[in-house]
Amino acid sequence: MAAGCVIGVDLGGTKLLAGTVDEDLQVHHRAYRLGRGGDTRTVLANIVDVVQEVREAHEGEIEAVGLGIPCLVDRERGVALACNHLPLVDVPIRDLMAEQLGLPVFLDNDGSAAMLAEWKWGAAQGATDAVLLTLGTGIGGGLLVGGKVARGSVGAAGELGHIVIAQDGLPCPGACPNHGCLEAYVSGNALGREGLRVARAVPESELGRALASGREITGALVTELAHDGDAAARDVVANMGSHLGVGLTSLVNIFNPEVVVVGGAAIAAGELLLAPARDVLARRGLPALVERVRVVPARFGAESGMLGAAVLAMEGLAGGDG
Amino acid sequence: MAAGCVIGVDLGGTKLLAGTVDEDLQVHHRAYRLGRGGDTRTVLANIVDVVQEVREAHEGEIEAVGLGIPCLVDRERGVALACNHLPLVDVPIRDLMAEQLGLPVFLDNDGSAAMLAEWKWGAAQGATDAVLLTLGTGIGGGLLVGGKVARGSVGAAGELGHIVIAQDGLPCPGACPNHGCLEAYVSGNALGREGLRVARAVPESELGRALASGREITGALVTELAHDGDAAARDVVANMGSHLGVGLTSLVNIFNPEVVVVGGAAIAAGELLLAPARDVLARRGLPALVERVRVVPARFGAESGMLGAAVLAMEGLAGGDG
Repeated sequence: MAAGCVIGVDLGGTKLLAGTVDEDLQVHHRAYRLGRGGDTRTVLANIVDVVQEVREAHEGEIEAVGLGIPCLVDRERGVALACNHLPLVDVPIRDLMAEQLGLPVFLDNDGSAAMLAEWKWGAAQGATDAVLLTLGTGIGGGLLVGGKVARGSVGAAGELGHIVIAQDGLPCPGACPNHGCLEAYVSGNALGREGLRVARAVPESELGRALASGREITGALVTELAHDGDAAARDVVANMGSHLGVGLTSLVNIFNPEVVVVGGAAIAAGELLLAPARDVLARRGLPALVERVRVVPARFGAESGMLGAAVLAMEGLAGGDG
Repeated sequence: MAAGCVIGVDLGGTKLLAGTVDEDLQVHHRAYRLGRGGDTRTVLANIVDVVQEVREAHEGEIEAVGLGIPCLVDRERGVALACNHLPLVDVPIRDLMAEQLGLPVFLDNDGSAAMLAEWKWGAAQGATDAVLLTLGTGIGGGLLVGGKVARGSVGAAGELGHIVIAQDGLPCPGACPNHGCLEAYVSGNALGREGLRVARAVPESELGRALASGREITGALVTELAHDGDAAARDVVANMGSHLGVGLTSLVNIFNPEVVVVGGAAIAAGELLLAPARDVLARRGLPALVERVRVVPARFGAESGMLGAAVLAMEGLAGGDG
């Protein structure tokens, strides 16, 4: 690795981030695409495109590509078994990408990739048991159990967005047939949806004025207005934090982790989101477990997925399995 | 082990079962106590008493005692960190028992012990990823993750009864501060409580007649009447099965297990309980995961905890950690 870098790619439901990453986890070049959906061919072409951009910007050798996708991944075959937000099911993504890029490609679930980065280099360093949630379009999850990233019987464990917090609750967005899933209450999408509802209900708030002025109420805007001090936007974020806390209660009771790491784009809300989540966890979780867990933001913020994909590629080259 | 046996002890919230078990997992003698609570000294004296009974009945040598308790267990220190149904917190149970019995004692959570028995010898044999629920006074849980029994950072993982299925739901019984926990809806206690409610609401049912005749409406009685065909009792069991299915949905989405094993006394209801649980899981779980999981009764039924404690003792003697 001394001479070369790898490329880490984080494919989100609506975003695509690639970076050339060296063995010290320094990012040399980044490329970013925003895009909503498209068919399978478009999604794959976008990946190739973003990889080529950072590859060309890089002067040294690129040794491999790591790719994290928001899907249940069969790692042995390198295909997605299920995918809530993208048309990738049963597509031989790993082999297609390797062929088109002429590089070894390593494929994993985006949450497991993010867990890898946070565990080896970030907020979960030194832990044997940790839970990671990435809050983006939906929720990605990563699990560290007994000092190993847990992947389930076919590599599809860690769908932490799809734990039920309200058995008679809201329908889950995307292809999940469930209702009352954590993801229906906690995600960038949920933040935008709740923000819109509150903007309509409280027109005199900054949130309401933003709506009146024709701006789209996205999760990012709600977060920005919350940081600016708008009470209505803060309530929306805090309410999402409380729901997050209910999900964390289940996860802490299940896993007895040393640390829960929260990343993804929505962690831009920082303590406005995490403080109410910790409050709920402290009130509802089993005290012996709550006392022993920290709830912290991802060290690598919204980049943990991309960096984790890079770590995946490095470990893949070294013959490890993460 | 050729010459000797071990003693497995399963301490439940209201029951105590011990058995002398040989290396083929055959049970030579059993002793059983029913008792509700009591102080710490009483609980410990009951354990000593039941162990001495099977020890005296056994002709050969006893090499060790395995003890499964319904508590968060710090396995390194051999103490309970938290205990919902018994006054055992911070008591040095392992060392006290070893001293009083003059035998090596191995202590674990009862659910983890049951997982060990079902994995090594029972319904989860051959699996790398499995989830076990024991439905007794409360819910015990066991986790097999990547071919190892998962115990969390301080040995307290697997509190599967305390995942939230209804964030605004029923208060959780016992010392858990939460509400809407799976255990509030699914357990022997919950079955008795719901049975009583329905007995009052439907006096012409067998359940209602049992109440009128002065019988105590317990989970065991509801199960018995359900097997006898009483529609009201069947509804109570099926409704509990549906709640169980919601919990299984979260667990299958988290763990991608090959098999979910359901044991404990309440599994006496058999398919009357499991069929509705499977139905809910099939409708609500992520299809790619649901297709790959089996939901089965524990091979060792209500004895998996006792047998698991015996396996724990055998593995402890052999220097393994299960």
